[in-house]
Amino acid sequence: MSWFEAETAVERITDVRWSAHVSGHWNIGTNPNGGYLAAIALRALRRLGPHPDPISVTTHFLRPGTAGAAAEVITELIREGRTITTARATLTQDGTPRLEMIASLADLTAPADVDHALTIAPPSIPPPSECVLRSGVEQGIELPILDRLDIMIDADQAAAGRAGTAAVSGWIRLGDGAEPDVLALLLFADAFPPSLFGLLGVVGWVPSIELTVHVRRRPASGWILGQFSTSDLHRGRMIENGALWDESGALVAQSRQIGLLLPRPAPTER
Amino acid sequence: MSWFEAETAVERITDVRWSAHVSGHWNIGTNPNGGYLAAIALRALRRLGPHPDPISVTTHFLRPGTAGAAAEVITELIREGRTITTARATLTQDGTPRLEMIASLADLTAPADVDHALTIAPPSIPPPSECVLRSGVEQGIELPILDRLDIMIDADQAAAGRAGTAAVSGWIRLGDGAEPDVLALLLFADAFPPSLFGLLGVVGWVPSIELTVHVRRRPASGWILGQFSTSDLHRGRMIENGALWDESGALVAQSRQIGLLLPRPAPTER
Repeated sequence: MSWFEAETAVERITDVRWSAHVSGHWNIGTNPNGGYLAAIALRALRRLGPHPDPISVTTHFLRPGTAGAAAEVITELIREGRTITTARATLTQDGTPRLEMIASLADLTAPADVDHALTIAPPSIPPPSECVLRSGVEQGIELPILDRLDIMIDADQAAAGRAGTAAVSGWIRLGDGAEPDVLALLLFADAFPPSLFGLLGVVGWVPSIELTVHVRRRPASGWILGQFSTSDLHRGRMIENGALWDESGALVAQSRQIGLLLPRPAPTER
Repeated sequence: MSWFEAETAVERITDVRWSAHVSGHWNIGTNPNGGYLAAIALRALRRLGPHPDPISVTTHFLRPGTAGAAAEVITELIREGRTITTARATLTQDGTPRLEMIASLADLTAPADVDHALTIAPPSIPPPSECVLRSGVEQGIELPILDRLDIMIDADQAAAGRAGTAAVSGWIRLGDGAEPDVLALLLFADAFPPSLFGLLGVVGWVPSIELTVHVRRRPASGWILGQFSTSDLHRGRMIENGALWDESGALVAQSRQIGLLLPRPAPTER
């Protein structure tokens, strides 16, 4: 069992209650990564219906999770249709809701009656070996999650605040060599440096208010290429768009989140 | 009171139950428009907390609504924070859930401690007077909603299947001259012709599986400019991205939906 599988595992208590343990290995600073926490809730939702692939997952982050502590997931099956299951979940710790999720699941490999197709080709970036390892420099905080994920950043965008655009791209994979799956894509959509750092420099912790991920195809084995950019930043709230491709060049997920840029002390005050 | 206000009105029955009436004036074919139905649910959610502006609204469409019939909205306040209220709603008719919504609300005019800003400028398109009135031709179905909304489409993209790209842009406003507000933006994000028609021609009814709208700024008076494009279509499910600007050029909302392209009879079989 991979680290990711083991550390997002849920155990059924009743039909609507699941127990889990929130690991400290996926932290951004002292808080569990949002995509990691969401993967725990999604793992419970996946077991409610017959459809394995999350085609739309929206997570509202209510409060930071607590690392190294038990969690409970409360689920509700909203509708089980022939092609789509819709369900929701609340992840709680110590009786306090940490995130609220709604998701639709389907079977991405089911044949369709429509032949038309359209997609987005991956951007051309250097291979992982020519990228630079993600460090904590962009955020000025410790990143325990880097022991669990290999994240290689396109060097042109790796110099905080010097890229001139609010964009970041690079490669990501599970750190123990496990292959990516549709659940890992949810994590990968929230594990790159905040794209604002390319424009603003060190941005600190950028909490997500809400993250929506659309999984489009099951990923092939190997690295996943991610590209993220901030399209709108206004009164401290930013919209960040993301896309993930597998090594075969197939678009495997699209994401959008609304996040919060927190005030930081001016450099001279540090 | 505008048509939009009157026909999306909700009346409190208890703290968690609201009654409404689904009008037949906002139909796409025989089904109420999804953005219109969602606006009813959002109107109830707005009354749960102190924050007036929906900054993130995700709606899962479970079944089509029934036009000209009563509806009930069941609400739940998930969290009322200092700056953000998070809540969810189920809209039912005849005891059957039609849509499920989760939303975060805030005050878009509240001062922020962060000065950095970034935005997307509106595309340059002809003024409304030089655009063409939306007709039902793109979908091959009746559009009663065009009695309630003025929708002017950029002529370059108005010839179904001839634009060569899955994109549409144009102008929209409430048909009775009422000014746009943050709730109307939810409706406007789901009222343009499906952007696939520019590529594929007549596409029929394209049901939304899930629609997420991020309202970014309160709109100024006048027309709203909308631009929509389909980025990925695979096995009949498409991702459509949208953006709305007001007449001052301010980005007022971003949207993304996953929709379903239904099989259609080949032209020779019609």
